[in-house]
Formats: sequence, structure tokens, C-alpha cells
Amino acid sequence: MKEKITVVKVGGAVVEDEVQLDQLLKDFSAIKGKKVLVHGGGRRATKVASSLGIESKMVNGRRITDAAMLEVVTMVYGGLVNKNLVAKLQAKDVNAIGLTGADMNVIRSHKRPVKDVDYGYVGEGEHVDGKELHTNADTIASETAKALAEYYDVTLIYSFEKKGVLSNPDDDESVIPSITREDFEKYVADGVVAGGMIPKLENAFAAIDKGVSQVIITLATAIDGNHGTIIK
Amino acid sequence: MKEKITVVKVGGAVVEDEVQLDQLLKDFSAIKGKKVLVHGGGRRATKVASSLGIESKMVNGRRITDAAMLEVVTMVYGGLVNKNLVAKLQAKDVNAIGLTGADMNVIRSHKRPVKDVDYGYVGEGEHVDGKELHTNADTIASETAKALAEYYDVTLIYSFEKKGVLSNPDDDESVIPSITREDFEKYVADGVVAGGMIPKLENAFAAIDKGVSQVIITLATAIDGNHGTIIK
Repeated sequence: MKEKITVVKVGGAVVEDEVQLDQLLKDFSAIKGKKVLVHGGGRRATKVASSLGIESKMVNGRRITDAAMLEVVTMVYGGLVNKNLVAKLQAKDVNAIGLTGADMNVIRSHKRPVKDVDYGYVGEGEHVDGKELHTNADTIASETAKALAEYYDVTLIYSFEKKGVLSNPDDDESVIPSITREDFEKYVADGVVAGGMIPKLENAFAAIDKGVSQVIITLATAIDGNHGTIIK
Repeated sequence: MKEKITVVKVGGAVVEDEVQLDQLLKDFSAIKGKKVLVHGGGRRATKVASSLGIESKMVNGRRITDAAMLEVVTMVYGGLVNKNLVAKLQAKDVNAIGLTGADMNVIRSHKRPVKDVDYGYVGEGEHVDGKELHTNADTIASETAKALAEYYDVTLIYSFEKKGVLSNPDDDESVIPSITREDFEKYVADGVVAGGMIPKLENAFAAIDKGVSQVIITLATAIDGNHGTIIK
């Protein structure tokens, strides 16, 4: 039987909310066994970029990254947010190490192919050329979980500011308890699932397809495995 | 016999000069055996801080770090500069990992005691409270070399934009080939050694006192061990 490992992705809004973040880190510290925390930090990067006079462009919930924006993203995600999380985890006796994709080449990316939108320095997969690429944190979480699935029994938890995948975006309590790929396609066709939730669910299904044991989409303060939407 | 390890500190001015940095990284890549690169990034942090409307205060070549400046330093040193160096080393087939003091608690700091000057969030030694502290990169290099000396035969190289310790600050060729602590005290008394060179040399002697095999202060593009000032 494979050893258990838990990969928790935490959304940018939670990272910026001291109270929610503290609760999440407390719950994360309590997870038994090996664990990985994957974080974004979106709004903060936008704020710093704007203070530096750099304009943020988003398309389909993904950032278009030019050279100047890549510097901000590297600073804010790789530096400020990451080291803040590491220091906070150390204070909770979790001996955290903060890695980016460049460190030990743990994540190899290639520039996203230019189709309708040129995302700039945005990465997707399998190549390193001595230049950092900015890759969506949901994708990193999914790729990490998939890579670990060969050696571990992996649970992937997408935690964010909602209680799960909602059937009614205006009703925070309308959590869909579980979703199959068939349900997902129907929800997208019906417009129930839209925006940033689509790539998140695509990442979730991709993880399941590659042997990740379970994927859960849940509130950042409810990562105990008993809440949210289960991806089947 | 202990295994050899080389600790190279690279100064902020070199980090910002593409040509010098590329040469340094090429030479660093060529160093045989285990190696550690310790970097600052001073001017860049000052520039980013200024763009963000945060004022930089320096006293005796050391930065006074308030909470806002700590964020900038964490972003610029831990994020931008560090990950840029990691990516560049990866491109040269050096499988680098970029660490800060917070990562795995590798460096424990305590807030510098308030004497004449309150340096703010500036660290010196042995304690972690879940808050990053900003510590001088020369000190980090010295502390790293000292800690490694228990297990390794350590060479510590302070590389920067000058050819070594100069007997005449206006003559770049006036490199002092070697300095003992006695020489150092005399040079300080005479005013030959002044400013940021004083703490650098103090760090160098502290390393020698704790079993580091050799310390060299040299030009960033001459780190082969045959140039610069040898500390005895």
C-alpha cells in the first residue's frame, strides 16, 4: 500500500485574509503524514504591479504575463507570499521549505502555445530554458499531485473562499456534493459552472485520470476531507 | 580528510550587472565539488522600494528595515533575485535550489539589539518567531561557512566589484594580498579600511576563528582562488 500524501492548493484571496489564512495553516499543520501546500497570490501581485505602474491583463481568469509582470509575479509569489507562508508554518512547527518551479527544476514548463491569446511568459509543461515562466497555481497543484501519484496515495484539495462547486453562484450554501466528468460537461453547457471554475475542474479531472486517489474542492477553513465537492 | 565545499558571496552590484553576473555564474558553475552561492541584491530593493513609495534608510552600510521594507526585501531578495539566479544556474546545468533563512529554518536569527541605532527587522543570530528578519548577506555567508566548517573543508569567497581589499580606495590596483587581524586593526585605525569593508572583514575573521580553512575577498569575475586578498 502506498504512503499517503496530501496536496493542498490555497487560493489567493485566502492568502491575503489573515484570519482565514491562519485557520488554514493551523488545519494544514494538523494534517497527518506528508503534505504539500501550493499557493497563488493573485491580488497582491496585481496591487504591487499597479504601484509599480505595470498594468495587469487577465483573460479567462489567467494572467497575461509580459517581462515586467513576470518580475512582479516572481517577487510576490516566489518571495513575499512564499516566504511569509514558510515563516508562518515554521512558527507552527511545520519544517516547511518554499520551492518554485525553478528550484531543482522541480517543475518543467514550456511556454503556452499562442492560439487565440498570447499569454506571454506563461508556462504549461515540459521544458526549461533558464527563464522563469508563470504558471497557474491550480495547474501546479494538479501536476504536483499527478507526479506524486506514481509513488503515493494522493489526496488533492483545492481550497478557496467558497464552500465548494456551487449550483447557484449567488447561494454560498448550494454546494454540489460530488461531480463526475459527465456532470461537469453538463454544468458547463448549462452555464452552472463558469469562469475560473472551469479550468479548476479540468485540473481536478486531469489529476483523477492520472491516478490521484481523491480531489476535493472546498472552503479554505474546511480542508479536513469531510466538506466541499468531491470530484469523481 | 574533510570534503571540500566552497561558499561564494556575490555582492548586489554584481547581481545587477548582466555581464559580470554571467561571468560569475559561469565561474561558479566550474567550481568542483559542493558549493553555495550567497547573494544580496541591495540596489534593486532600494529601487523597488522607491517605486512603491517606501524610503530606504542606510546606517553604516546596513539597511534599517521597517515592516514595509521587510516586505520589499523579502520580495526582491527571496523572490526576484534568488529565482533569477536559480533559473540562470539551471540553464548552466547546476541543479540549484534557492533558500532563504526561513526555509527549513536553515538560518535562525534574532532581532539585532537596539543600541545606538534601531535597525528594525534586521536579524543577527539564534531565534525564530515566525517572522522573517532581514540579515546582511555578508553575515549570512560567514555564518553559513562557519556552520559548514564542522563537516567540511570550507573556502569562503567574498566576491564584489573591487579586486580585493584596497590600500588606496582611489586605486583599483592597490590590492592588499593578505591581511591578518593585526593588520586589519591597524588599517582601521589608520582609516585605510573603512565603511562597508569593516563589517565584511569582521565577518571574514569570524569565519577563520571558527575553523573556515580560507577566506578570500576578490573581484566577482576572479573567484578561482588565485586573486584578491587572503584573510589570515
